[in-house]
Amino acid sequence: MIDYPIKRKNRIKQTNYANLGMTLESDIEQTNRYYLSIGRAVIHKKPTPVQVVNVSYPARNKAKIIEAYYKTPSTTDFNGIYKGRHIDFDAKETNSLTSMPLKNIHPHQVEHLKEVRHHGGIVFLIVSFKRHGNYFVLPGTVLFEYWDRQTSENGRKSIPYRAFIERAYEVPIGYQPRLDYLKVIDGWIDGTNR
Amino acid sequence: MIDYPIKRKNRIKQTNYANLGMTLESDIEQTNRYYLSIGRAVIHKKPTPVQVVNVSYPARNKAKIIEAYYKTPSTTDFNGIYKGRHIDFDAKETNSLTSMPLKNIHPHQVEHLKEVRHHGGIVFLIVSFKRHGNYFVLPGTVLFEYWDRQTSENGRKSIPYRAFIERAYEVPIGYQPRLDYLKVIDGWIDGTNR
Repeated sequence: MIDYPIKRKNRIKQTNYANLGMTLESDIEQTNRYYLSIGRAVIHKKPTPVQVVNVSYPARNKAKIIEAYYKTPSTTDFNGIYKGRHIDFDAKETNSLTSMPLKNIHPHQVEHLKEVRHHGGIVFLIVSFKRHGNYFVLPGTVLFEYWDRQTSENGRKSIPYRAFIERAYEVPIGYQPRLDYLKVIDGWIDGTNR
Repeated sequence: MIDYPIKRKNRIKQTNYANLGMTLESDIEQTNRYYLSIGRAVIHKKPTPVQVVNVSYPARNKAKIIEAYYKTPSTTDFNGIYKGRHIDFDAKETNSLTSMPLKNIHPHQVEHLKEVRHHGGIVFLIVSFKRHGNYFVLPGTVLFEYWDRQTSENGRKSIPYRAFIERAYEVPIGYQPRLDYLKVIDGWIDGTNR
């Protein structure tokens, strides 16, 4: 093993990246299953959209997709209902210690969140600062402020970590649920958060 | 062409089936795009879930899915927000003139609709009676009644067309929007429908 340090390093790096890439999403899905099981909320992840080009039928009634491509989602990944309120959010991760780059977010996702908010939904991002090891619920209003300002003269292309400390809400981490983000949303519903 | 009557007949039948199979879903999607464009509601179809088994990378950064299978959706196909209310529904078609078979509906879809209703959402089916050429919004409450009763002694395995006439709401058909189902939902929100 000591003979292949570069190969080994690469493999480890790839493995870590894959795990990290899945963690936030699967932690939220585990949390959602828990919420559903205790009757607290009904929130699901939407399937990843796939453009199917070619399907074969090796057996009767069993379609095998043999050519397909991932499509860019036209909305956010998660939505559902909590205490009678429509909830809509996406999950984002960053390796940065100092800010979340706005390029992590698709323009049509922001557009979608704005539309849902306009109709009375609760919209936010769950942001994981991987190297800090913490998670925030970033209210849509704060996201929109930085998003709309980025094209202006002094607009920055990222949301500083400081803004998360001051204007987002840290998500309690636990075993069950893993990321208790609805605890933060309670503040919205009773009016103590915006 | 007159030489291959069977082949021709088969082809026409397949084409018709495919068109009919897509129509209700695409009519609802067109309606949803119209609602979104005039700012009336934000309602989207969820992508069809696909289990990806194998992916190749013929070019950098371009994943080509070469083996995948359709999965049974764990929820309904459509959800969104209208007048601040969470909306959740599925679309069903039937060729029957007399009833909609309950086997058209997956048990987990009914379970999902019940959960959403429990949390205060507006839940229903949009049902197309293809040979009558009409469309109904069937309230979740009516669906649940027939669904729960089907296992009892005199329970039937379908919802009769008569029940649609008496207890569902016919959807106005037009050019834009094609299926104005939110007109029916208005009755829910102002309390004149259940």
